[in-house]
Amino acid sequence: MKIVGLITEYNPFHNGHLYHIQQAKRTTGADAVIVVMSGDYVQRGVPAVMPKRLRAESALECGASAVFELPVCYSTGSAELFAESAVALLDQLQIVDSLCFGSECGDLDALSEIADLLCQEPKDYRSLLKKHLRNGLSFPCARRKALKEYLPEKNFAALLDEPNNILGIEYLKAIRKLKSTIKPYTILRKGARYHDQELSTENLSSASAIRSLLSYSGSSLRKYDDLPKGAFDDTAPFNIFGELESQVPQCCLKLLKDCHKVSYPIYQNDFSLILKYKLLNKYPENLLRYMDVSEELANRICSRLNYFFNYKQFCDLLKTRELTQTRINRALLHIMLGIKKTDVEEYIDGGYHFYARLLGFRKDREKLLTRISKESSLPLLIRLSETETIPPLGRKMLRNDMLASNLYTSVVTDKFKTAFQNEYKQKVIKI
Amino acid sequence: MKIVGLITEYNPFHNGHLYHIQQAKRTTGADAVIVVMSGDYVQRGVPAVMPKRLRAESALECGASAVFELPVCYSTGSAELFAESAVALLDQLQIVDSLCFGSECGDLDALSEIADLLCQEPKDYRSLLKKHLRNGLSFPCARRKALKEYLPEKNFAALLDEPNNILGIEYLKAIRKLKSTIKPYTILRKGARYHDQELSTENLSSASAIRSLLSYSGSSLRKYDDLPKGAFDDTAPFNIFGELESQVPQCCLKLLKDCHKVSYPIYQNDFSLILKYKLLNKYPENLLRYMDVSEELANRICSRLNYFFNYKQFCDLLKTRELTQTRINRALLHIMLGIKKTDVEEYIDGGYHFYARLLGFRKDREKLLTRISKESSLPLLIRLSETETIPPLGRKMLRNDMLASNLYTSVVTDKFKTAFQNEYKQKVIKI
Repeated sequence: MKIVGLITEYNPFHNGHLYHIQQAKRTTGADAVIVVMSGDYVQRGVPAVMPKRLRAESALECGASAVFELPVCYSTGSAELFAESAVALLDQLQIVDSLCFGSECGDLDALSEIADLLCQEPKDYRSLLKKHLRNGLSFPCARRKALKEYLPEKNFAALLDEPNNILGIEYLKAIRKLKSTIKPYTILRKGARYHDQELSTENLSSASAIRSLLSYSGSSLRKYDDLPKGAFDDTAPFNIFGELESQVPQCCLKLLKDCHKVSYPIYQNDFSLILKYKLLNKYPENLLRYMDVSEELANRICSRLNYFFNYKQFCDLLKTRELTQTRINRALLHIMLGIKKTDVEEYIDGGYHFYARLLGFRKDREKLLTRISKESSLPLLIRLSETETIPPLGRKMLRNDMLASNLYTSVVTDKFKTAFQNEYKQKVIKI
Repeated sequence: MKIVGLITEYNPFHNGHLYHIQQAKRTTGADAVIVVMSGDYVQRGVPAVMPKRLRAESALECGASAVFELPVCYSTGSAELFAESAVALLDQLQIVDSLCFGSECGDLDALSEIADLLCQEPKDYRSLLKKHLRNGLSFPCARRKALKEYLPEKNFAALLDEPNNILGIEYLKAIRKLKSTIKPYTILRKGARYHDQELSTENLSSASAIRSLLSYSGSSLRKYDDLPKGAFDDTAPFNIFGELESQVPQCCLKLLKDCHKVSYPIYQNDFSLILKYKLLNKYPENLLRYMDVSEELANRICSRLNYFFNYKQFCDLLKTRELTQTRINRALLHIMLGIKKTDVEEYIDGGYHFYARLLGFRKDREKLLTRISKESSLPLLIRLSETETIPPLGRKMLRNDMLASNLYTSVVTDKFKTAFQNEYKQKVIKI
């Protein structure tokens, strides 16, 4: 059995993701698809719009064979850390033959060439990069500029304008760095670009556009108050599903309908008070221990806390030329979730992963799990009550994952007035 | 100038409190009234229904000369600690001649006799008390029972059924223990009993009944959703003020009207997510450090956290025969506010107080402040930027006070979508 690995967020799952699964199988000739997915918090440094199990189930309904959770300290890390840890997880499963990722360019050779260059970091390139960083550019900008100047004849810099190209390059770097035998493939992304806010008429909207649609669904009770009376009545969600129908695969539409306003949508601002509580009475030196918190950012957080109105507005407030929005999102999230620099360094030094946390699988692919149990270098984690085979460092990581998920679930259940279920007791999805 | 001290919560201020101020002056012959008041959290272990400054201003409008804040670790302590620390503050101001408190019995001699007995703790009484505690009674119940058996001929046990008698006894014990020269007086409480939930037709409702009325005012946006349509329309608050008009002195009614749904009402459940966040991933041993958290309670909190739905419901869930509701409220509040046993012990050993935090004063009594500045053994704290004269231990206490108030204000501003003002920048009220 040939197995392809996909690295995903599915925030939320849409037609483009279905296409990705189908094309990945076709391109690589795989019979099974193993997905590594962000949990309840995603790489932009924000909570996912819906819980991980709902997103995993959507993917399974649409053809994924098994979905594994990327630990929260990685799923909310820089593109580099996200990619490296996700590739490491696929690699350590030991049964994945290939990795297939979508990119805006669809050109594996070009992406590989950039990846090699970034891995080697030739001296001239490095001094260009340093110069731009010194001048106050953010890392992504400095890198793009340095690359453009280092290889002016190639159009590489333009490739770095596209988020999926960038992630693709990181996957390729990771494969190289980890000396993985996983064979990379890329497919051309169709339809919308990542940041598009408008729904596409070609049925391939970006996840970002779909999230934006969901945010109109009046899910936040407070939103209603700002609206003219009658602007949204009880039928509003169904109109929204009318819109969604063309953007989301049929196979998961029912699931999304059933769970709407029961377990999603969830936004950054649903965590406003929690973040504020965590930041109260803190000094910059208390915040520096958390991942992605620089001295400059720690100072800004403390000096501007009096102007905190809500989570999103506070992120905007902290922005500077050097500090990207995503970096700020991540830093605040890491503070809130207690994700510390030293812990993450320890995890990375320890080999990134200590368990493979299964969120769900298709029963017709159950044999995959048997193979993983036998061949993988990681314990297959199905029940959180069975962690004997996980080393202490891994258990620490798992505790942090559980805290993050229990917090997310607490916010969900508080928002929609539903019963809380501890992560510890959640079951693996089988369909 | 003769000065009477009052120990209060004003949660919220009502006709009974006005009567208390007037009678205190009459009974003691005082020209000025110094009030010690709980801050944003009160002795039942819950957040006050409205911010401390609003309550202080009400009191000043109604004749109090100056209002001082009782530090949060004391205002949310046991009746004994609350009373002792409040008497200590009045005592350390050095200019207070008398203390006047309301009681259900109005009998200073009887209360003094009980206070003396409880201070001395005769051997026979103590063994009775221990027996009842061993049998699993809560401390208040055990004490009442022991007293009844120790002095069967007197009707003392019945006195201990009334919360204001109990507090009065604690004030008397404190005066004795601190060897204070403050002379105690008691006045008979008129009108409603403390726990009455019904508004009185005699215009002397309990604060508890008024809070209950306020909770019907649809202040909680979520409440609306549970109500049949049209149950409360926009005129509802005014109907409520119609009711309140007879329960709250005219002098502070306008203030209450202006601030309704701007800075109050606030309930325990407005802190639900914050408390949940604080409790997630905690082991009993992490909780034991906080004041009022026993081993039994810490275990119950951790083992029942999965059934947390909201703050109030969780308190109910934790109740046992030994653990009173108030004790649980306090314990959870202390966890949320980070009030540690060892810190409070240090403060008490250090003499209870390190500053006298002024919330507001009447300009026609400004001379009081001059006298306090000259005669008091405590620094008069007017601006939080001027803390040079406060010893390190006192600054630690003040930081905790600030955290508690900033958290309260954060919840207020989040609930009513108003601008946050840091405690550090709040001004003293002058009227």
